[in-house]
Amino acid sequence: MIEQMNNNNHATIAYEYPLLERVRTYLRLEHILQALQPDTPVTLQNYTRYFSALFSILDLCERSDVRTDVQKDLERRKAQLKVWAQHPDVNQDSLEQTLNHVDQALQAIQPINRVGSNLKQDRLLSAIRQRFAMPGGTCNFDVPQLHFWLHQPQQIRDADTARWWSELEILVNGLLLELELMRGQARYQPVSAPNGLLQESTEPLSLLRIRVPADLPAYPVISGHKQRFSIRFLRYEPINGKASVDEEVEFELALCP
Amino acid sequence: MIEQMNNNNHATIAYEYPLLERVRTYLRLEHILQALQPDTPVTLQNYTRYFSALFSILDLCERSDVRTDVQKDLERRKAQLKVWAQHPDVNQDSLEQTLNHVDQALQAIQPINRVGSNLKQDRLLSAIRQRFAMPGGTCNFDVPQLHFWLHQPQQIRDADTARWWSELEILVNGLLLELELMRGQARYQPVSAPNGLLQESTEPLSLLRIRVPADLPAYPVISGHKQRFSIRFLRYEPINGKASVDEEVEFELALCP
Repeated sequence: MIEQMNNNNHATIAYEYPLLERVRTYLRLEHILQALQPDTPVTLQNYTRYFSALFSILDLCERSDVRTDVQKDLERRKAQLKVWAQHPDVNQDSLEQTLNHVDQALQAIQPINRVGSNLKQDRLLSAIRQRFAMPGGTCNFDVPQLHFWLHQPQQIRDADTARWWSELEILVNGLLLELELMRGQARYQPVSAPNGLLQESTEPLSLLRIRVPADLPAYPVISGHKQRFSIRFLRYEPINGKASVDEEVEFELALCP
Repeated sequence: MIEQMNNNNHATIAYEYPLLERVRTYLRLEHILQALQPDTPVTLQNYTRYFSALFSILDLCERSDVRTDVQKDLERRKAQLKVWAQHPDVNQDSLEQTLNHVDQALQAIQPINRVGSNLKQDRLLSAIRQRFAMPGGTCNFDVPQLHFWLHQPQQIRDADTARWWSELEILVNGLLLELELMRGQARYQPVSAPNGLLQESTEPLSLLRIRVPADLPAYPVISGHKQRFSIRFLRYEPINGKASVDEEVEFELALCP
């Protein structure tokens, strides 16, 4: 996540802030998915990380209807792309390609059930999940069938994790496409926060993205909702606690509608 | 954990079952510690696993006074070793070496505070811990100071994790020594469970250890308390649910007082 700033070649740290509840859930899911790569075999060494990610995804999908949210968002993107297609200066090839991706994602997502409903039938997953919230709750004496499973040949686990992943894959593809399109809506602009504070009222937004010079010894604390946000820089002081930054901070900001 | 059976060279799967509440906590801690090796650098890629382990250890140490339990257990071991030292057939050198280890662990453990009390002062840990129970709760917008920390030079994180580890190290050493001594109290014996079930009443025990042939398509479900236990073998059937084993099962059992 340390990127080069476009304009001055300095390393930066990237932060994002969701201004809508459903975008908050999307970002959490994207974050968790990093620990659930379908091509990484699950073993005795990494299974805690794997199941932790899987159950976190199921928790989030049970709390809100992510499938419907993603579908509606992609339908909005599609309508918007069709409006843009009227514009004479638009690259029609690139736009058509994006429209195809959105169409494919929508066609895949429409028939699926609420995510995770089939996984509830899986006895091994249910047994592990019951114990998972407990600290150290996946010892071999807690869930002996998990311990047994972890000692079976790798292809047995691979078949199971492939089956579990197939329950998530369509939603994940749609979600990642929606986030890619959302992030593509705005470019980074240089901005400045006098006394380390920037407050703004704006048109309705989904997501703030900011890039901060990596050598600034401070991090941004962001709050807001879709039409108003504030970014306050705090010094990183693990011992003495929070200390606001008094100087002007220059950074980059992208406002994604 | 697949080991060779002593007597017939077959691969086995090892299971353990604690018969005392405090041994249950010890085994959980030992299990979690596998994910908290002090020499593994914490990075953007593995930090979830690291903090998950650290907070699970703190949770367990806050729920019960592990420090006092380990200290009392090691004092009992010391008294027992001194009784054994009277026995003419004992290897005195080996016994003296063990006594020294126990003495060192006891001397180290006596002056320490309840584990984790110093870590409560750590502002970064507190901020992360508050969010950690939430699925995906360590996104960069949840705990921006964690995201900042993860982008600092590795030596800054190494210094912090070394400091956090130093709060746990003495207890961990005592705990692992106690488990090693506990496991050393008994040898595996071949036993047989007619109809896949073994029930026994015994002298007071701390821990059951069992080794099952790896090619047996079943896992042991164990229950019990310190003077009585039962081991029932169930077939591993992820789809159709539990099915008890009707045949005789031969396995190995060690009863650790």
